[in-house]
Amino acid sequence: MKYGVVAFPSKKLQDLANSYRMRYDPHYEQITPHMTLKDAFEADDAEIKDISEELSKIAKRHKPFKIHATRVSSFAPLTNTLYFRIEDNSQITALHEDLHSDFFGGPARFSFVPHITIAQKMSDSEHADIFGQLKMVGVNHEEVIDRIHLLYQLEDGSWTVYDTFRLTGDEE
Amino acid sequence: MKYGVVAFPSKKLQDLANSYRMRYDPHYEQITPHMTLKDAFEADDAEIKDISEELSKIAKRHKPFKIHATRVSSFAPLTNTLYFRIEDNSQITALHEDLHSDFFGGPARFSFVPHITIAQKMSDSEHADIFGQLKMVGVNHEEVIDRIHLLYQLEDGSWTVYDTFRLTGDEE
Repeated sequence: MKYGVVAFPSKKLQDLANSYRMRYDPHYEQITPHMTLKDAFEADDAEIKDISEELSKIAKRHKPFKIHATRVSSFAPLTNTLYFRIEDNSQITALHEDLHSDFFGGPARFSFVPHITIAQKMSDSEHADIFGQLKMVGVNHEEVIDRIHLLYQLEDGSWTVYDTFRLTGDEE
Repeated sequence: MKYGVVAFPSKKLQDLANSYRMRYDPHYEQITPHMTLKDAFEADDAEIKDISEELSKIAKRHKPFKIHATRVSSFAPLTNTLYFRIEDNSQITALHEDLHSDFFGGPARFSFVPHITIAQKMSDSEHADIFGQLKMVGVNHEEVIDRIHLLYQLEDGSWTVYDTFRLTGDEE
């Protein structure tokens, strides 16, 4: 089964992201707007209990953290994906690192760019057009993330939340 | 903001429900297959903290419980909705009652029929046709539910998980 770890931002930021996603993101229906903290990975039922426990420990080591969406960026030319760029900060980086420890199979394959996807799988010309528009509109939104979620993927591609972990920082 | 409380069944049962929902349920995209334990209700940010705490207490009073989906039923003539009927048992009933205590504004408006929706908003003739087919196919699936989720609804109608509560029965 495929699992992933995300943070869902507030309703306000999700609604804003969805106002674009409903038009420009074919994955719109599979999951609500989110910041991916750990990309999809395979695990079976036995492993997921350990993973869930490890996530619970990690959540206890990290306090709630601020996110600041500052601009609309693009992953082009890698992929024609537009996103709200979340500014890096030491807390997000530390959490991401903990989610890519040896326990989880080690470092991420790509360098971590905190973001919330708002458009993807566009043609080159559509990408150029929409990117131009959305860059001008921009985004400026700050809020606090106080929980992360472990999800699994259904056969149709949609994602279900399996568990929620509150970031308490109790055991920093 | 609109909140609700549900249990998501296993991937296996969700995949089965989705095989029908993708064709017959226009709400297919808004939430993955679920058993509603508390219908949508309004609450603001201040209230939701208390509600979340109350749910946490309730989850500690209830042990994981078995669900048994035994047949395909319909809410017609009330609505043209088809669902996997989950057999009542004292544990589900007790949990549902706790979620409709005075704290939550009292008893549910409708008598509780545990179910997982697989088709809705069909015309009378489509309903009759599909119900006839699915009744024959039927369903027979048993599993254990060990957690419930508090969700909120986005402007586009989709639902995001806010929190997860494990049924521990620690404080029975």
